[in-house]
Amino acid sequence: MGRGYGWRAQVPEHAELAWILGCLTNVPRLLRLPQWKMKRASQSNEGTVGLLTYPVLQAADILLYKSTHVPVGEDQVLHLELAQDIAQHFNKKYGEFFPVPKAILSTTKKIKSLRDPTVKMSKSDPQKLATVNLVDSPDEIVLKFRKAVTDFTSEVTYDPSSRPGVSNLVSIHAAVTGLSIKEVLHQSAGLDTARYKMVVAESVIQKFAPIRNEIKKLQEDTSHLIKVLEDGAEKAKELAAPIYQEIRRLVGFQ
Amino acid sequence: MGRGYGWRAQVPEHAELAWILGCLTNVPRLLRLPQWKMKRASQSNEGTVGLLTYPVLQAADILLYKSTHVPVGEDQVLHLELAQDIAQHFNKKYGEFFPVPKAILSTTKKIKSLRDPTVKMSKSDPQKLATVNLVDSPDEIVLKFRKAVTDFTSEVTYDPSSRPGVSNLVSIHAAVTGLSIKEVLHQSAGLDTARYKMVVAESVIQKFAPIRNEIKKLQEDTSHLIKVLEDGAEKAKELAAPIYQEIRRLVGFQ
Repeated sequence: MGRGYGWRAQVPEHAELAWILGCLTNVPRLLRLPQWKMKRASQSNEGTVGLLTYPVLQAADILLYKSTHVPVGEDQVLHLELAQDIAQHFNKKYGEFFPVPKAILSTTKKIKSLRDPTVKMSKSDPQKLATVNLVDSPDEIVLKFRKAVTDFTSEVTYDPSSRPGVSNLVSIHAAVTGLSIKEVLHQSAGLDTARYKMVVAESVIQKFAPIRNEIKKLQEDTSHLIKVLEDGAEKAKELAAPIYQEIRRLVGFQ
Repeated sequence: MGRGYGWRAQVPEHAELAWILGCLTNVPRLLRLPQWKMKRASQSNEGTVGLLTYPVLQAADILLYKSTHVPVGEDQVLHLELAQDIAQHFNKKYGEFFPVPKAILSTTKKIKSLRDPTVKMSKSDPQKLATVNLVDSPDEIVLKFRKAVTDFTSEVTYDPSSRPGVSNLVSIHAAVTGLSIKEVLHQSAGLDTARYKMVVAESVIQKFAPIRNEIKKLQEDTSHLIKVLEDGAEKAKELAAPIYQEIRRLVGFQ
């Protein structure tokens, strides 16, 4: 199914709670969400119920575990606000039950495409050189940064509006090293952008190497992966079941 | 929950299949359904997701058991058409699986209010004399028919547009006796409406008596009722589980 329901099939309470929460959610609010407006245009049909109500399913994902904090990207802030409002609406109607989940926003700015630093970096970008993947080899990473679009100034500075290309490199550098923008700039003083690209590539390679190795190892060990998934589903079920039983009782299904 | 989800909580596959079917249903189609337009106005808020997507849940109710025939009232014909289209859409996408369910329409015309034969008889009518209930006593039934609104012609004829009141009595008479309109009229030749009302009341009492007795008996035997519900849920689960497993496989959840 296009809407990525798949993994939830392990815990049927997700769909059931989504139904209950849908009875507390107004349709016009969903119709106003920017993600619905944008993505509906890209569906060949007129926009499905699955697409429209996906934020309600996400609210169920959060509330089914009585989550208190949720890491979100900027594009998910409105969806988390919906989950917060649904939690409050439920609490008002059936008594205090759900914690109102708080957003944990990443401090890293959105990473931009290496080929066009005015758009965000995306897994689905058809330009292969635009995006760095966790499983890229060191050679691929070096190539992608060498070809990264910058401008004709050789100095390394941070000014996303006037110099988006090199500023994106600085952002990436800061993100993978855990340093601040200021610290990164200080460290890179005197480098030209060509040499700086190689510094950033190297820091990305360093950061990704252990992750890449772990991914490769896991991919070879299918039975271990399946066990991890099964253990996770088991744990999720154990957490969700008593909470959902309590929800059923509160809304009068028992 | 207002949307009557309750009994489905016994078989979580209803909500899960509803999610899958929602991914095959376009939102504009649901927004155009007359029941949504009418009922949304009566919800104090702006119309909930539960109300909008209720026809998709109904489609899941039907398809989860691979139902072939569904008894429907006139007001549910469009919803059954939605279920038919969803079944065909699914079959086209994942291969022939669901029978396309056919409607079984009742031959009995809609029964009208005894107080106002231009509107339909309804459980929720605030006028107590407008509606005959299965558990009404014989005295109550006689009273309601005696007070039934007719016109100033004493003859018994069937012409719903010019004589809605007496025609409604004829419809009820035919429905409870299983006779045709023509047979009922033949039988009632020569009666005036006042006497005819008592004939209809008597036939309703005859028809309802065994049903009423059974309801009274069941209401006193709570443990038996609970057992019936549990057995039914068990049977439903046994029917639904293998079908839903097959659906999961078809849509790629396994």
